[in-house]
Amino acid sequence: MSALPQAHEAASSTPDIRIDRAALIAELSRVLPEDCLIADPGRLRAYECDGLMLVREMPLAVALPTTEAQVVAVLRTCHRLGVPVVPRGAGTGLSGGATPHKQGIVLSTARLNRIVSVDRLAQQAVVQPGVRNLAVSEAAAPYGLYYAPDPSSQIACSIGGNVAENSGGVHCLKYGLTVHNVLRVRMVNMAGEVMEIGSAAPDSAGYDLLAVTIGSEGLLGVVTEVTVKLVPKPRVARCVLAAFADIRKAGQAVADVIAAGIIPAGLEMMDQATTAAVEQFVHAGYPLDAAAILLCESDGTEEEVQDEIARVRVLLEAAGATEIRISSDEAERLRFWAGRKAAFPAAGRIAPDYYCMDGTIPRQRLADMLEAMETMAKKYDLGLLNVFHAGDGNLHPLILFDSNDPDSVRRAEAFGVDILELSVELGGTITGEHGVGLEKINQMCSQFGADELDMFHRVKAAFDPAGLMNPGKAVPTLHRCAEMGRMHVHHGELPHPDLPRF
Amino acid sequence: MSALPQAHEAASSTPDIRIDRAALIAELSRVLPEDCLIADPGRLRAYECDGLMLVREMPLAVALPTTEAQVVAVLRTCHRLGVPVVPRGAGTGLSGGATPHKQGIVLSTARLNRIVSVDRLAQQAVVQPGVRNLAVSEAAAPYGLYYAPDPSSQIACSIGGNVAENSGGVHCLKYGLTVHNVLRVRMVNMAGEVMEIGSAAPDSAGYDLLAVTIGSEGLLGVVTEVTVKLVPKPRVARCVLAAFADIRKAGQAVADVIAAGIIPAGLEMMDQATTAAVEQFVHAGYPLDAAAILLCESDGTEEEVQDEIARVRVLLEAAGATEIRISSDEAERLRFWAGRKAAFPAAGRIAPDYYCMDGTIPRQRLADMLEAMETMAKKYDLGLLNVFHAGDGNLHPLILFDSNDPDSVRRAEAFGVDILELSVELGGTITGEHGVGLEKINQMCSQFGADELDMFHRVKAAFDPAGLMNPGKAVPTLHRCAEMGRMHVHHGELPHPDLPRF
Repeated sequence: MSALPQAHEAASSTPDIRIDRAALIAELSRVLPEDCLIADPGRLRAYECDGLMLVREMPLAVALPTTEAQVVAVLRTCHRLGVPVVPRGAGTGLSGGATPHKQGIVLSTARLNRIVSVDRLAQQAVVQPGVRNLAVSEAAAPYGLYYAPDPSSQIACSIGGNVAENSGGVHCLKYGLTVHNVLRVRMVNMAGEVMEIGSAAPDSAGYDLLAVTIGSEGLLGVVTEVTVKLVPKPRVARCVLAAFADIRKAGQAVADVIAAGIIPAGLEMMDQATTAAVEQFVHAGYPLDAAAILLCESDGTEEEVQDEIARVRVLLEAAGATEIRISSDEAERLRFWAGRKAAFPAAGRIAPDYYCMDGTIPRQRLADMLEAMETMAKKYDLGLLNVFHAGDGNLHPLILFDSNDPDSVRRAEAFGVDILELSVELGGTITGEHGVGLEKINQMCSQFGADELDMFHRVKAAFDPAGLMNPGKAVPTLHRCAEMGRMHVHHGELPHPDLPRF
Repeated sequence: MSALPQAHEAASSTPDIRIDRAALIAELSRVLPEDCLIADPGRLRAYECDGLMLVREMPLAVALPTTEAQVVAVLRTCHRLGVPVVPRGAGTGLSGGATPHKQGIVLSTARLNRIVSVDRLAQQAVVQPGVRNLAVSEAAAPYGLYYAPDPSSQIACSIGGNVAENSGGVHCLKYGLTVHNVLRVRMVNMAGEVMEIGSAAPDSAGYDLLAVTIGSEGLLGVVTEVTVKLVPKPRVARCVLAAFADIRKAGQAVADVIAAGIIPAGLEMMDQATTAAVEQFVHAGYPLDAAAILLCESDGTEEEVQDEIARVRVLLEAAGATEIRISSDEAERLRFWAGRKAAFPAAGRIAPDYYCMDGTIPRQRLADMLEAMETMAKKYDLGLLNVFHAGDGNLHPLILFDSNDPDSVRRAEAFGVDILELSVELGGTITGEHGVGLEKINQMCSQFGADELDMFHRVKAAFDPAGLMNPGKAVPTLHRCAEMGRMHVHHGELPHPDLPRF
């Protein structure tokens, strides 16, 4: 299966330049120690893709700076020479945000990996971008604190990448996305200017540029330091497992819990196809006769958890739950979650390929969305596993298909487009936490109008007038969208024949 | 006492244009009904200032559109003619964000005052910008919901103004500032383009421009519709009043409460001078022998409130509280708050003039800041009332002075500069919730460096390349800051002799 041709083209087509590779490497050698610059093709291969593995490109070189001063020097050099720069964190991103540019370099933040400080009283940590997400919580653990956002890749992914993608996770329902847990970043723009954005104080004068930089997918600058909020570890955590005979009732139960003013620490849903797939794999003890199950976690003090679980139970029963179990100890709580965490690998065992979507919808529309996707699955005659952050309305439907069967690919493609377009129609977005990158750049044309995209380009130009920072990602050109207009006429037939797999 | 000359000049000096007033009014008459356009000088006078009453300017006209289409038409007209536009909400802002431009018009959102919808299940309301803050909560009350941000002007101020200033309030410690409670805005930029910014879904693709627009002080566009979050009314609210013999201990107690992971619904501090001033005025029953008192409110279920208050009490006692009272009923809770709410009028009774500052510092530095301000008060031989959102680190020190005594004015001025500069030095900001506007535009030069200010100007240009939307406010020119550089050399002597009073 070849790479996404349209996306691929986008990654390397802007701007149109010809670089003298030898001259570039000579210039970079003057500002970086020898072991911080990779130019050897064999070693470059490790950087040819991120988690969007079907799109691969060889960069001209990889810079691995160890100090902010080196980041500045690399960016100034590339800015002067007109060389595109693709920032890269741990390379676990799923949407191709770190896919190299063939006329550019990759700037990896992996070696900026120092925990600068952990402040127990202020409940903040200052870390460099290459620090792994989980390492922040490990450093804070002696003080009874942790860093809340928990993407499923948290063992490997780094804070810099989390900032670039505004990463989420199971606990973001209660504790917020990356944008809600970062107070300040230091960032170097393409011209090599260092900016402090945000403040350790609650508010900040001037335009609030922090939220713009968080989730900007490496298009605005390279982050060199991040001040994150830490939160106290809850004293108690307990998980409720609820079974439903009808997926619509499960969707309604999620809306009911949130509408009652309860914000669980996590609120996840799996449908019957998913529980069947994972049960063979991890033996979590899920009720296999249920059309859907919900996992609802409560954390806090013993009193808070008891009170919240009692209220949740009443609502789940009223919504028609056929069975409710509450974890009696930590081992049972972890067993309830084991199946959820194994859902993606389990999908890989029951179908040759799956395509993971990331649309997010207002959660009161969950039941409608789930019913619509059931109908779509029948229409396209494809398997579908539903496993997702229900409380956030962030869907991760897994479309099962066979990449060796062109008709199956075509149907999966059309199914995916239907899901994304319905997400937008229901007032939602095409991506909840995986980013746009190269993968969903075409769908940005459905999500936004010309004025809005133009506004994005103008904001980009405010940070990077030369357009050299991660070009071709996240925000499509208006020209591209005009071409995509034709896609909507021929509904369901994408101009590119291939789809990414995860 | 005349207006702030520097600020005043800023308001009218950019851009340098000469408008034919009669031609402008004729053009506006073509796009607005007669009763939506004010050109009569007598009626214009009502718009010559906002809450920064010492700075007054007559606009060329005032537009009072009743529909978004009229907003678009007015902006297109002014854009075409090169006429500056100053957006205005309810006119309660304290920093001069709505001070007119003498070569421009005021665009008031007062008549865009419809509550479009209240969605109980989604816990959201869609409102026009002219809806008063409190009216949103009143509309949501039948569903047991309310809108959390509660500026002290909430009876009068409107949602559009709250968005422009990113307004706070007593309950923002727990429930967040405006930026944390707004999901989406519709905004019209200077060119008359309508943009939807943000999403009712938890996250949104593309750059997150919502936080940039919230708190942008009317420099980026005119908001025509706002989707706000509603939250369930807490079942119980109770207030703890704690007395301290030492203001440093009170500051430390605030840091201790927050460091313990407790987020009270409100956490306010008043010093002895303030309690003495308000007690004569409202008879709240405050302990007058205390150097400082804290008001700490807890809300939630009965169990949550009991648990939280028990934990708070232990911490306050450990920090050295000499007396702790807990409100036993709603009447007592309101009495505890009555003094806090009367602090500003009380200051007006004990001194000819007062100057209210709005610096915000990381809250673990509160004790240092309070001690430093005590020393400054002695140095400048001026009265000082400290009353503020302690939990947020948002200070509202009231410097007492006499505007008829030039030496008192000079000392108050220098005192204010010292406070703002120390706020920045301690890692804080010059404004917590009142905005920069005209009032603090000079202090922006202390807060930000040239690269950062340049970045702000580039972001402004992305939204408003012609620079016609509220020119001269919030972000100083680099030229202005270069001039201000001289202020720092002659420490404490501002180049302008007059200060705003509130």
